[in-house]
Amino acid sequence: MTEQAPATEAARLAYIALAHLAEPGRRDLGVLVRQVGPVAALRQVAAGEVSDDLRQVVAARLARVAPAGTVADALRHAARAMVEADRLGVDLLTPLDEHWPHQVADLVRISRDTSTIERDTDPPLCLWVRGAEPLSDACERSVAVVGARAATPYGEHMASELAYGLAQRGWTVVSGGAFGVDAAAHRGALAAGGLTVAALACGVDRPYPLSLSGMFERIVDNGGTLLSEWPPGSDPHRARFLIRNRVIAALTRGTVMVEAAGRSGARSTLRRAVLLGRRAMAVPGPATSGASAGCHDELRADRDVRLVASVDHVLEEVGSIGADLAGPLRGPDRAVDLLTELQSRVLDGVRPRAARTAEEVAAAAGVSARDARATLPALEELGFVVCREARYRLAPPRH
Amino acid sequence: MTEQAPATEAARLAYIALAHLAEPGRRDLGVLVRQVGPVAALRQVAAGEVSDDLRQVVAARLARVAPAGTVADALRHAARAMVEADRLGVDLLTPLDEHWPHQVADLVRISRDTSTIERDTDPPLCLWVRGAEPLSDACERSVAVVGARAATPYGEHMASELAYGLAQRGWTVVSGGAFGVDAAAHRGALAAGGLTVAALACGVDRPYPLSLSGMFERIVDNGGTLLSEWPPGSDPHRARFLIRNRVIAALTRGTVMVEAAGRSGARSTLRRAVLLGRRAMAVPGPATSGASAGCHDELRADRDVRLVASVDHVLEEVGSIGADLAGPLRGPDRAVDLLTELQSRVLDGVRPRAARTAEEVAAAAGVSARDARATLPALEELGFVVCREARYRLAPPRH
Repeated sequence: MTEQAPATEAARLAYIALAHLAEPGRRDLGVLVRQVGPVAALRQVAAGEVSDDLRQVVAARLARVAPAGTVADALRHAARAMVEADRLGVDLLTPLDEHWPHQVADLVRISRDTSTIERDTDPPLCLWVRGAEPLSDACERSVAVVGARAATPYGEHMASELAYGLAQRGWTVVSGGAFGVDAAAHRGALAAGGLTVAALACGVDRPYPLSLSGMFERIVDNGGTLLSEWPPGSDPHRARFLIRNRVIAALTRGTVMVEAAGRSGARSTLRRAVLLGRRAMAVPGPATSGASAGCHDELRADRDVRLVASVDHVLEEVGSIGADLAGPLRGPDRAVDLLTELQSRVLDGVRPRAARTAEEVAAAAGVSARDARATLPALEELGFVVCREARYRLAPPRH
Repeated sequence: MTEQAPATEAARLAYIALAHLAEPGRRDLGVLVRQVGPVAALRQVAAGEVSDDLRQVVAARLARVAPAGTVADALRHAARAMVEADRLGVDLLTPLDEHWPHQVADLVRISRDTSTIERDTDPPLCLWVRGAEPLSDACERSVAVVGARAATPYGEHMASELAYGLAQRGWTVVSGGAFGVDAAAHRGALAAGGLTVAALACGVDRPYPLSLSGMFERIVDNGGTLLSEWPPGSDPHRARFLIRNRVIAALTRGTVMVEAAGRSGARSTLRRAVLLGRRAMAVPGPATSGASAGCHDELRADRDVRLVASVDHVLEEVGSIGADLAGPLRGPDRAVDLLTELQSRVLDGVRPRAARTAEEVAAAAGVSARDARATLPALEELGFVVCREARYRLAPPRH
């Protein structure tokens, strides 16, 4: 960070300090930052020169973040937060960072309309991120797959199938890291060797729920991301799940709600997707299933919510013509049909993201290493795979 | 029929004769009848003064109906058909009859638009009807519940539940008398003691399929109706099912498609409902179920098709405000809540259509005849039941 201009660095630190002072999504704080910039906003907040409401809200945390009530004090706290994040292997992103997911800025649009959403829909000021892939890139082609914790086997099956198919076609699957539909979505994406992003309502250093910690580690190990608007160590308060949902909706091109009872929190994600102008989708289920009642209600109530029953249906909504509507990553079906049986088997051993050596491809495909080594260059020439440093992965879809 | 004016009687016979000469739904024949009237139309057809196509189509049947090629000949054939219908206990209705279901005239609208539907969507010329209730009245408040023969247990459950609930609220359930969804719909309506109408693609004297003949008899015994556009003795040709579907759509205020595979014939009923401006509804099912794929396709493809998952959803579409949206036939829930437990039990023994004596109500409700006799007058006073000749049935909904 030392290479940055001092002014930019101060602004970054101010964003971080502000993120420590109030729960995310507050419109009054966001408006202030947009009007006067983060440093001046921090100064006003620290000096108590804000509305009574905001002053009272930040009072307790301000005493901890900036005991002397000065901006310098608060910036020092932010610098310590950066050191701490670094120690935990966590990236601390602000809107000034290159890899900041710019999509969340759209939240200003719905935050502005206070008649529709009363509060907590302003964009994040700051994100704690665990994962190697740049978050902005990972979300460029992403879909949210969300739903009830109390999912039925049907709901988990659908979440997993949709996520698997989307990941297989190079899409990042974003969800909330919860039990039920969310976990099934993350796992489906992992099974396809794809990227998945879990937007958490607690610190990324101790993702909740604990019993899913193996899954959270696999997400990071496979190039995916854990992110949170709350500093390491934060607890998953009940209200935070709802506040967090707007980020899931905003990061992605569309939100698929898989199963949701009448009052499921997943519906708030879907509503925010609609308000953001993102694609809103719901999976139908048996009319007799309470776990699908929320999906059916949304499909009945809002013509902007589309029924989706397959990966192809989801891609019809979010895909770019040509790149996604034609089928899996590996080019037009007809071209695949022209491959020899051996070529086709070797291709099955190549993954969209994780680059593999010829030997690893051979092991995955169940062919000899010699056959893999002989076949992969031809597949590269045909445009099905790309090779870098003797490692192969599926060619990205053509835009 | 002898009381009618000779001209009207000739017109009726001409309709009947024409119905014997071609398969139902032909636009060219319908247009001719509307332009010159049924008698003149019959004269032109008998004389071969029509398009080559129509002349060739009717040729074989004309040789049987009017061997001498005269109108008198054809009218005599029609008169014999009336005698034969009478012998079978079947009513032979034409558009000139009081109980003709006037709703089918709307089919002219979609028949006119030949770009949308190519053929076979003109209104019927004639209907053979078995059943006591006047068909026009029975269809005044009716809903079609249709779907696949190859229904799953889920589909049969939903068809039966929806039909039961609709019948309980005084709605007539119309369907096609087929295996699967249709049969479940008819049976659901019968179980609620309601009216149900089976529109058949064969003669009403030998309804197909044979193994459902017990159900067909119960439909008639319970005040319901079997109807057909084909004369007694006609076979259920494959094409006739599709031709028949337009009548199901036209008779009713709306069509609910319960389960349908991608290419199910039930979709043609739903499409015709949309074209007629009737309410078109589809029941969702598991995204994994091929039996629901047609429902999901329709819900995705056409915003005029509404998702329905319950009887209340169906009533929201087809019901009259006030009369149906408040709940079951028996008045507002609050009023029901005020009933004593005995009153409420006795009320459960009263049916919407079949008038019962106090003793029959007692038997159905499982209370003593004395209790039933003591309670029913109070229920009548409260407006829950009506009494006629010492027989009770549920009060009709208030329009």
